[in-house]
Amino acid sequence: MTSNLNKFAAEFIGTYAMVLAGTGAIVVDAVRNGAIGHAGIALTFGLIVMAMIYAVGDISGAHFNPAVTLGFWASGRLAASHIPRYLLAQLAGALSASVTLRVLFGDVKSLGATLPSDGIWQSFTLEILLTALLMFVILHVSTGPREIGTMAAVAIGGTVALEAMFAGPICGASMNPARSIAPAVVSGNLSGLWAYVVAPVLGALLAVPAWTLTRGTGRVPHQQDGAKPR
Amino acid sequence: MTSNLNKFAAEFIGTYAMVLAGTGAIVVDAVRNGAIGHAGIALTFGLIVMAMIYAVGDISGAHFNPAVTLGFWASGRLAASHIPRYLLAQLAGALSASVTLRVLFGDVKSLGATLPSDGIWQSFTLEILLTALLMFVILHVSTGPREIGTMAAVAIGGTVALEAMFAGPICGASMNPARSIAPAVVSGNLSGLWAYVVAPVLGALLAVPAWTLTRGTGRVPHQQDGAKPR
Amino acid sequence: MTSNLNKFAAEFIGTYAMVLAGTGAIVVDAVRNGAIGHAGIALTFGLIVMAMIYAVGDISGAHFNPAVTLGFWASGRLAASHIPRYLLAQLAGALSASVTLRVLFGDVKSLGATLPSDGIWQSFTLEILLTALLMFVILHVSTGPREIGTMAAVAIGGTVALEAMFAGPICGASMNPARSIAPAVVSGNLSGLWAYVVAPVLGALLAVPAWTLTRGTGRVPHQQDGAKPR
Amino acid sequence: MTSNLNKFAAEFIGTYAMVLAGTGAIVVDAVRNGAIGHAGIALTFGLIVMAMIYAVGDISGAHFNPAVTLGFWASGRLAASHIPRYLLAQLAGALSASVTLRVLFGDVKSLGATLPSDGIWQSFTLEILLTALLMFVILHVSTGPREIGTMAAVAIGGTVALEAMFAGPICGASMNPARSIAPAVVSGNLSGLWAYVVAPVLGALLAVPAWTLTRGTGRVPHQQDGAKPR
Repeated sequence: MTSNLNKFAAEFIGTYAMVLAGTGAIVVDAVRNGAIGHAGIALTFGLIVMAMIYAVGDISGAHFNPAVTLGFWASGRLAASHIPRYLLAQLAGALSASVTLRVLFGDVKSLGATLPSDGIWQSFTLEILLTALLMFVILHVSTGPREIGTMAAVAIGGTVALEAMFAGPICGASMNPARSIAPAVVSGNLSGLWAYVVAPVLGALLAVPAWTLTRGTGRVPHQQDGAKPR
Repeated sequence: MTSNLNKFAAEFIGTYAMVLAGTGAIVVDAVRNGAIGHAGIALTFGLIVMAMIYAVGDISGAHFNPAVTLGFWASGRLAASHIPRYLLAQLAGALSASVTLRVLFGDVKSLGATLPSDGIWQSFTLEILLTALLMFVILHVSTGPREIGTMAAVAIGGTVALEAMFAGPICGASMNPARSIAPAVVSGNLSGLWAYVVAPVLGALLAVPAWTLTRGTGRVPHQQDGAKPR
Repeated sequence: MTSNLNKFAAEFIGTYAMVLAGTGAIVVDAVRNGAIGHAGIALTFGLIVMAMIYAVGDISGAHFNPAVTLGFWASGRLAASHIPRYLLAQLAGALSASVTLRVLFGDVKSLGATLPSDGIWQSFTLEILLTALLMFVILHVSTGPREIGTMAAVAIGGTVALEAMFAGPICGASMNPARSIAPAVVSGNLSGLWAYVVAPVLGALLAVPAWTLTRGTGRVPHQQDGAKPR
Repeated sequence: MTSNLNKFAAEFIGTYAMVLAGTGAIVVDAVRNGAIGHAGIALTFGLIVMAMIYAVGDISGAHFNPAVTLGFWASGRLAASHIPRYLLAQLAGALSASVTLRVLFGDVKSLGATLPSDGIWQSFTLEILLTALLMFVILHVSTGPREIGTMAAVAIGGTVALEAMFAGPICGASMNPARSIAPAVVSGNLSGLWAYVVAPVLGALLAVPAWTLTRGTGRVPHQQDGAKPR
């Protein structure tokens, strides 16, 4: 049994770890003149998501992402009453990570904030597509054959890594309002932030009908929370 | 139970995701002056294949590739009646992805089309070998011990990544007619396309006797569709 | 059944392999003018940890790290009587690896010793955070659902790789007193060593309450030693 | 049931694939001016080993390496009568791969032959250590808990990748007489070849007492052939 406190703490620590490591890689790469490289940053994001899903996936469902929480709700697998607690934990965790990086490294590279590199609508569209693919994978691996559930963290972490790899140079590959809000607020660079709040949510909602269309009947959720209808 | 619509949608979305991410990495790499790098592009192809197999492998068999569909048919594990539907879904998904990239980035680097860098016969031969190895791995991991089936997506995604890594600089490492046709048609650069349609199919067919020669008796398929004799 | 000799030998060989490969990558990278690169070094550390956990995880618990051994003790899952044997095996293994590298390559780059690149307190703080996250993952994956235990090596190796990736350029990402003591002692460069002994231990202890706060009731350990209360 | 023909074909194809992809990466990297990079070459070697173990691990034991075959024999888990067949298949597969690369690319970079970059004894010593670690991992993951067997390919492929990563720039990280003999013979560059035949065998034999010392009692093999006592 997991309590609401367990879940809140799991979402807080998981999101803290993801923003600390992921945006930390962007900050350290800037401080050390590109020592990590774009591929290294993308792998950091993917691996921290994978590791934290293995750590607390069975406690809170390991969302670490308001868009994912809303996607689970829209798919009928998370009670609306859980949403405020999840979002609060995710935002608090992300903000704490950005403050940690601010204290350790100063205000470098807007603390890893996602900023559209060309047009805002190009990034907006990309973020919708990226988050839709991510949520599509999440919904499937948390309801497919049970033994695939063991590999869910690899599938989801791999998706985050590959999307950061190919789309990161264009739009930052946020897919996550909490990951974008925290560095923007703590560094004070709010430019284009609205797009990184709205687009991921739209993308996550878009994944729900795509999942419905592709799943066979008889699929049952096998993960906690993100997967337990109630 | 999965319906034909489920399978069609799964092949469409899976191939769309693969072409969007994989050839998208080539396009973004060109737009951003090599920010992703060859290794990053190869890993993107491998990871998206892995992720989409975990997502819909039990729905459609997760071919995403006309050559693989024909290879399963030649091995006696896919009914001929399924072939047109699978091929149509794969082509439609790939074309949609190339159109998406065209709209987002314009006609950059022939949208990631595979083009032989030296002689056409060198690339033709390599594509036969690459697809034969890929299909050999696919046939084995979908009929070996059941617990290996859980890792099939890692084995297949890993094969795609490694083949893109070592052969990509020479022939593009397509192994997949749909992946080659879509960017060629949408960008209008059809040079050498025939080789990328014919060679992967030959390679996939070549894998069938190699698989027969190496499998022990008593191997039974444990995947949906690609694996269900009928 | 595993004897104390089995465990001692497993910790010795595991730590030897980790220091040989990981700090060896730093030394070879210096000898060959950056041929491996920072990302390659980080992946080497993560992969050797993963491989050695798969090899001897069920024999000794695969700590390879005095901070992890103390963290398991603090969480009530390793008897105090085991600590001296584990620490001795880890230090002896690490020192043997540094001596091997000294003989093979000479005194290059302080044999891969961790040295704070900017301020000592920045590195001290980072090492606490890094080790806390690592121990948090270790405690969870060794007590969560049993099938996740199969993937514990991937989760832990992945965490080591990603922390080395994003924090390596700043503090060396030791997270392990044995890994820091050995090259420092054998190369005679003890500068800042105290921080790499104290901070990882503090970090590992900090992970225990974080784990308590996030675990549900009913979690039972499923690993040997690190996981067996006695 | 697997026949001797199945095993021979599996070792032939597996070794062919490994040498084609691994040394092929070295050749293509040279032809394309470093497009793949050292890390890309190391990952190619690790991934092809992983993929081919998943494909035919339960058929032949997936040695692909005369040193590993002799190591299994020395550990009492492969009948001496199997050795000639295994070695012949491995050598034939490796030679065929080198001939394929010769035909496709000409005599580039000695077809990826392993050549000691500094002193021969440095490389000789390193190859002993590298193969001992590899065989140590192989012996453990093929006799530990059965569920770890599912991950054996990841552990072994990861070990090959990390050893190629950190030691490749010094000694080529062969660990495998067949992988060294084939490009040397086909390109006619036999310099230092004896070291790459003798050292891996010594290393593999050295792993057997290390495995004995670290395994608990009650370990039973769970793989075919490499793992079946008789």
